[in-house]
Amino acid sequence: MLKGIVRDNIVSTRKQEALVGSKFLEVQLIENSQLTEKYLIAVDSVGAGIGETVLITTGSGARLALHNTSAPTDAVIVGIVD
Amino acid sequence: MLKGIVRDNIVSTRKQEALVGSKFLEVQLIENSQLTEKYLIAVDSVGAGIGETVLITTGSGARLALHNTSAPTDAVIVGIVD
Amino acid sequence: MLKGIVRDNIVSTRKQEALVGSKFLEVQLIENSQLTEKYLIAVDSVGAGIGETVLITTGSGARLALHNTSAPTDAVIVGIVD
Amino acid sequence: MLKGIVRDNIVSTRKQEALVGSKFLEVQLIENSQLTEKYLIAVDSVGAGIGETVLITTGSGARLALHNTSAPTDAVIVGIVD
Amino acid sequence: MLKGIVRDNIVSTRKQEALVGSKFLEVQLIENSQLTEKYLIAVDSVGAGIGETVLITTGSGARLALHNTSAPTDAVIVGIVD
Repeated sequence: MLKGIVRDNIVSTRKQEALVGSKFLEVQLIENSQLTEKYLIAVDSVGAGIGETVLITTGSGARLALHNTSAPTDAVIVGIVD
Repeated sequence: MLKGIVRDNIVSTRKQEALVGSKFLEVQLIENSQLTEKYLIAVDSVGAGIGETVLITTGSGARLALHNTSAPTDAVIVGIVD
Repeated sequence: MLKGIVRDNIVSTRKQEALVGSKFLEVQLIENSQLTEKYLIAVDSVGAGIGETVLITTGSGARLALHNTSAPTDAVIVGIVD
Repeated sequence: MLKGIVRDNIVSTRKQEALVGSKFLEVQLIENSQLTEKYLIAVDSVGAGIGETVLITTGSGARLALHNTSAPTDAVIVGIVD
Repeated sequence: MLKGIVRDNIVSTRKQEALVGSKFLEVQLIENSQLTEKYLIAVDSVGAGIGETVLITTGSGARLALHNTSAPTDAVIVGIVD
């Protein structure tokens, strides 16, 4: 899993039906308590907001965190780091 | 998920039967609002065109965006960023 | 699979229901007996602690090591290196 | 998906039963029309030969291009670029 | 798939039950006939030994090479290069 800080909302009006209602957040990854230059976009599942430190699951495991497990995504925010 | 700008069409006449009719687009990835030197090729599912900023899902989740979920691909454009 | 040293506990109170009770550990990867600057976060399944050298499985295979194979994770510590 | 030029045949006599008869090709990846220093090995499914530019699908999607979808591979050449 | 040279045995006494009896080998990857500085750890399925050049399958495809396809691993040696 990956850790990072939520930096931005990504808005997409034209998208796959199964993603309607999903909140897309761009996350800057943190490794060893330091910010990296790596970013990815994840669907939120825990009410995360900009500036919060989050845990992201990627791949097929990401979809297990969603109500619709067949939503076409590959990264979901599954926790907020204390 | 990844964000990027569609740069090119990739044309392949000899290909897997299940990919006939798929539009292959080469996408230059964007991280933190900046263009990177990373590129990948994704199947379009939302009518994206060259120059548009798109969201890409990779891996098994990509196929969930296609009519034929057993098409042998690993990256699909699932949204167009506003 | 990846090898690394457990460096830190990651605490997340607000998280996916299926991850409650999971221990998240940040691991610094080792390649060719040398520490790298790569880190990832894995769920523990073997009682690993800080400072121990561990083996990590990523992707869908990771969940096969958990009691709840539908927990939304993508990396699990599956062994402790002697 | 990835694009690249087929550079070499990889011959393996001692291999998994389910891979007998597979043609393994080493491919040099191309991004943005330029050769990279990245290489991977893919099973051919479209009759590709050395020097041809091909499309590769990786991960679980790769196996969907094979007659034996349970062959233990993770990368298959699924098209030849015109 | 990846190509590499087996460099080391990794011994893990405390590990997941489903991995008991697995041989873990650290492999130095080769690209374009040159050694890289990339390493990974794979379960052997073909009787590979230190110094041999091997083919590795990663991800869910790796497990298809094992007797126990639900063993929690993500990389398996599936062939020995001639």
